[in-house]
Parts: sequence; structure tokens; C-alpha cells
Amino acid sequence: MSELRKDPILGRWVIIASERGKRPGAFQTIPEEKNEAICPFCYGNEHMTPPEIYAIRHDKSPPNTQGWKTRVVPNKFPALGIDEKLAKRGVGMMYDMMVGYGAHEVIIDTPDHHRNIKDQSIHDITNVISCIQHRIEDLHKDVQMRYVLVFKNKGKEAGASLFHPHTQLIATPVTPITVKAELQGAESYFKMKERCIFCDIMHEELSLEKRIVYENDGFVAFCPYASRFPFEVWILPKNHDIDFHSESVVKNNHFLAEILKIVFQKLAIGLNDPQYNYVIHTAPNRFARRGYWQTLHEDFHWHIEIMPKLTRVAGFEWGTGFYINPTPPEDAAKHLREVEID
Amino acid sequence: MSELRKDPILGRWVIIASERGKRPGAFQTIPEEKNEAICPFCYGNEHMTPPEIYAIRHDKSPPNTQGWKTRVVPNKFPALGIDEKLAKRGVGMMYDMMVGYGAHEVIIDTPDHHRNIKDQSIHDITNVISCIQHRIEDLHKDVQMRYVLVFKNKGKEAGASLFHPHTQLIATPVTPITVKAELQGAESYFKMKERCIFCDIMHEELSLEKRIVYENDGFVAFCPYASRFPFEVWILPKNHDIDFHSESVVKNNHFLAEILKIVFQKLAIGLNDPQYNYVIHTAPNRFARRGYWQTLHEDFHWHIEIMPKLTRVAGFEWGTGFYINPTPPEDAAKHLREVEID
Repeated sequence: MSELRKDPILGRWVIIASERGKRPGAFQTIPEEKNEAICPFCYGNEHMTPPEIYAIRHDKSPPNTQGWKTRVVPNKFPALGIDEKLAKRGVGMMYDMMVGYGAHEVIIDTPDHHRNIKDQSIHDITNVISCIQHRIEDLHKDVQMRYVLVFKNKGKEAGASLFHPHTQLIATPVTPITVKAELQGAESYFKMKERCIFCDIMHEELSLEKRIVYENDGFVAFCPYASRFPFEVWILPKNHDIDFHSESVVKNNHFLAEILKIVFQKLAIGLNDPQYNYVIHTAPNRFARRGYWQTLHEDFHWHIEIMPKLTRVAGFEWGTGFYINPTPPEDAAKHLREVEID
Repeated sequence: MSELRKDPILGRWVIIASERGKRPGAFQTIPEEKNEAICPFCYGNEHMTPPEIYAIRHDKSPPNTQGWKTRVVPNKFPALGIDEKLAKRGVGMMYDMMVGYGAHEVIIDTPDHHRNIKDQSIHDITNVISCIQHRIEDLHKDVQMRYVLVFKNKGKEAGASLFHPHTQLIATPVTPITVKAELQGAESYFKMKERCIFCDIMHEELSLEKRIVYENDGFVAFCPYASRFPFEVWILPKNHDIDFHSESVVKNNHFLAEILKIVFQKLAIGLNDPQYNYVIHTAPNRFARRGYWQTLHEDFHWHIEIMPKLTRVAGFEWGTGFYINPTPPEDAAKHLREVEID
């Protein structure tokens, strides 16, 4: 099974997932995405995935058969797994490791091999959102799952190995450092101002208008002031909510589906269908065992970060944590605002 | 000119370098590296770069003519520039910016368009190292330059836009967060143990042997315990030194040149000439103006981090700061140790 290893200088965790099978010989060239002859995510191939965890079906068809609209299965090559007992230990004089406890699931967005978010119906996208919410709620029942990260890799430049539209989630036994940094930043601001920093940013952006891409009654999409990447877009719920799966979000799912569809249409039309990653930053599992991160984080505000793959991250970024972005977010937002959707 | 913008939640700086010229229209596809017909880094084309800053020449030829062995020029599309006065200011209700003060230079490793580190002579590599040391020393005279990051992008996957072998440096007016995190990690360890964490890691690795790739009298190359990437290799000087340009390093330059040549030969032979980034992490400029980072950092230890581009960074990594590495560093080191060099 995989193991988590901690960098002794930075405290950064790395998942050494040797079961994913990349032995030295496998790296002769960078693997190319294959538009596979037999797709394990298409109708009729349900037996090619591990047994399904959850599905939304348009009939009363049994699990692991056709008839589903959105289907959740374990990743066949999981980075982390639930079959292990969580255990931390020291290694030699210098190092720390943890057994690779966690979960790695795939949400198959749609049975249609070629239909990405931009081409899905609002109803279909709402199904995907509901599935994700259901899985987060379920995984949070395990007190050892500290955090559930939901993400999509679209295209091989973005790290996808299968073409069929899918979303992934990985539940980790520690709160990831990127999320911790956001929680701490939001907490510091809240202590100083007694306001949510995300709410304040959203209000500033709505009043300035120049970085807004789109808004509807539930959500706003904008290019953040310090965008790391050209055409980076964040989507924030207008209601202050810390959890992606909270009831007040669920009742606005159709607004989220609509803004996602429109933003991805604008990116596709305005930038010639770029590859991208997106991540959902929601609050950590507050049922988790103990310690600081059990506090309520009412100062956090869930959001989505969309990162089109238009430039490459290079040595300077790896060496510094700085990013060089050649497109001012004001220009990016204007370009996307002006894209007309048929 | 470019500007530095600070993410209000994370405190992360981003360089908005609109002079680099990537306007919306330029992103129709990801730019391909061109093995350009006329290379600005080849002999006879010295007029195609901005005037040279420094060069090692094998004769008494004048600047900006042929006859150089290693040549340093300003980047034609700099991310940061010295023509600006450093100024920080607030922007609206929420944001902070800084004028893009700094330096962005290119070290043209060799006049030979096709000769990368692995094929260069020890003497040639020593010239490149000397040039870098000279430039760091010179840039540190400007008290507004807080940090000089030296890096190489080899291949378009690694972010290179020109094929001709070259190294880059960017001097920034703030200490980058990645470097700060290393300094802080090293400082915490030193406070606890009164020893350098890098020295301790190196001794542990030398005694365990299983992650060692190569060593000589001055340096050791190993795959770090918590490697983020398959076949990541770090090179550490055996002498405890905080600065890449210190006198005790300079007198060991030939050992550094030798280990670099051998590590890149092993990577090229063992992994079919992969693309890569490397970064040099040296201490910040201690002549810099004021504040915490003026302390001496005797607990730091300069080093080189080599990151072959064999996998792609995807949504999970962007969302968490965690990395998934499919190759245990013990396997990677064994593979590289066993690569035979003619």
C-alpha cells in the first residue's frame, strides 16, 4: 500500500503511491492520453471499474449496470486506501511516515464519452454536484478522514489519464497545507476585522466589476486580483457558507450548475477549448478526531478555483512559490465577459 | 512594467508580467518550443540579445562579439526589472501591490547550440558555475534585491522557450515563500538540536546508502526521502555552507561540475533524456534592508533540487500542496546508481 512521507524541513507531506505502478521502466517517455478503444467509464463496461459506491440512476436499474446518470466508483489505482489502519511512526533518525489511509474515488460525470461540463445540461451538472455533496457527507462520517479534496483534471496537460468526463476526490488523514494556509489566512483576517475575507473580496470585486466574469443569483465568477495563472477563475457562493455540502448550498445547486456551464463555455469559446484543472476548497471534516482543526471555521468560505493550462510551471515557480502570470486578470476577465454564448 | 500582487488570503506574491506579451489572443494553443532558425544565443548573433552583463571569454575579444565561453545577458522579456523604483502600496479596500523591481538574467551556458550539461566538459560547467556565483555576488550589492533564484528549464515541458542551453536567474525584492519555509524549518530544527538539518539529513542518507545516487569529495547526490517527483535528486555540498557563492564553495567548483555532469548523464541514460527543472536554493541577501531575514541563517545549507518532468502536476497537487509520487525514491536511486556511464 502507499505511504505518506513528511519532508523534515518543510513539513510537506508526499504520497509515495508505488501501487500506481510507475516503476523506472515506465518513464521512457511521458505517457500520452489514449482515447481508449474500450472505455471503462462508458455504458456496458461497468464491470471494468471496482464496484460502484453510489450512483444517480434514471430508472430502478441495479448497481453496476447501465441506467446511471452519474456514477461513483473507487479509483482503480488509488493514491490512498481505506483498507489500512491509520498509523504514524518515525523512520530512522530523521523522518516521519504515515500509512496511506484515505479514499480515492472517481465520479463519472455522465455516460456520454464526449460531453464535458460546457455541453452538459444544467440538470446533468446538478447531478454531478449532488453526487459530490453526498460523497463528502458520507466520508466525513469517518473521523480519520480529515479532508476531502474534489478536483477535475481535463486533458493530458492537466494530468488526466482517461478522456471520458470524470471528477475525482481524495480524502486525506491530514489537512493539506494549501487548505491550512487558506484557513489560517481567513482566521487572521476574521480576528482583525470580524468579517469573512472571502465575503469582503467578493464585495470588492462586485463593486469594481473589472475582474468579474459572470454572476447569477447564487454565485459570482471572477479572475482573482493575484491570479497565479492566465485566465484563472474563482467561483464563490454569494451566501457565506463554509461547507460545499451544506443544506443552503444544496438548494442553490442549479445556480452553481448554471455558472459552471457558462464559465466553461466562455473558456472553451474564448481560448479554443483549453485543458484545465479545477479544485473545490471546502472546510475540513469537523468531526475529525482532535486538535486545532476541530474548531468551526466560520471564518472560511468554500469556493472553486479553475486553472486553465495555458502556460507551464517552470523552475522559477518551483524554486520560489512565486508565480509569473503574463495576462493581467483585468484583461482576462474582460475577454471572458465579452465572449458571447449562443 | 510588471507588478507584484499579493494574494490577500495566503500572502502569496504573483508577478503580473504583462510586458511578456501574452495577451488573450496568444493563448489559442500552448506555445511550442521552436528549434529556431536563427538562435539569439549562438555565435554571431550577439546583437540579438540585450547588451551583455558579464562573460567568460577565451581571448581578449570585446563584449557582445564572438569569443565568449559563457555569457550573461538581461532577459529580453524580463519578469522583473531594475528600471523601477521599489514601492509598495495598497490597492482599493483589499489588496497590496509592489512595483516589479528586480532582475531577470540569462546565463548562456555555452556557444554550442546542442551541448547540454551532460555533454559539456567539467571545465565548461565550471565556467557556468563561476558566472552564476559572480552574478549573485554582484546582485547582492543592491540592498533591494532580497533573493536571487537560479534555475534551469530544460525542454518545453519544463517551461523552456529556447532550445540553446541556458540558465536563468531572477532577483526578487522579497524573500520567496518556498525559501522562507526552508529557512524557517532549518531554524526550528537548529533551535531544538543546535545542528543543521541539512547536515543531519546528509549524514543519515550517507549511512543508509539506499537513496544515494552518487558522491564525490565535495558533494553528495540523493533522492530525498519525501521526493515530490519520480527521480527527484538533491545535491548537497558536504561542507556546511549557506551561500552558493562563498569562497569555500568556489574552491570546490570542479567537484560540483563533476557531480552535475554525472547526475545529468545518469538521468539522460536511465530515463531517455527527460526534460527537467533545477533550482539552486542559496541563502537570501543578508545585506538586504531590515527585518528578520537579515539574520545570518548559519542554520541554512545551500543545495540544488533537480526535478525531472516525468509526471504532470494535476488538480490534487494544486488543491492540496500534497504530491503523489508513483516511484519510491529508494527505487529511483537504485536505478540511477546502476546506470553505467561510458
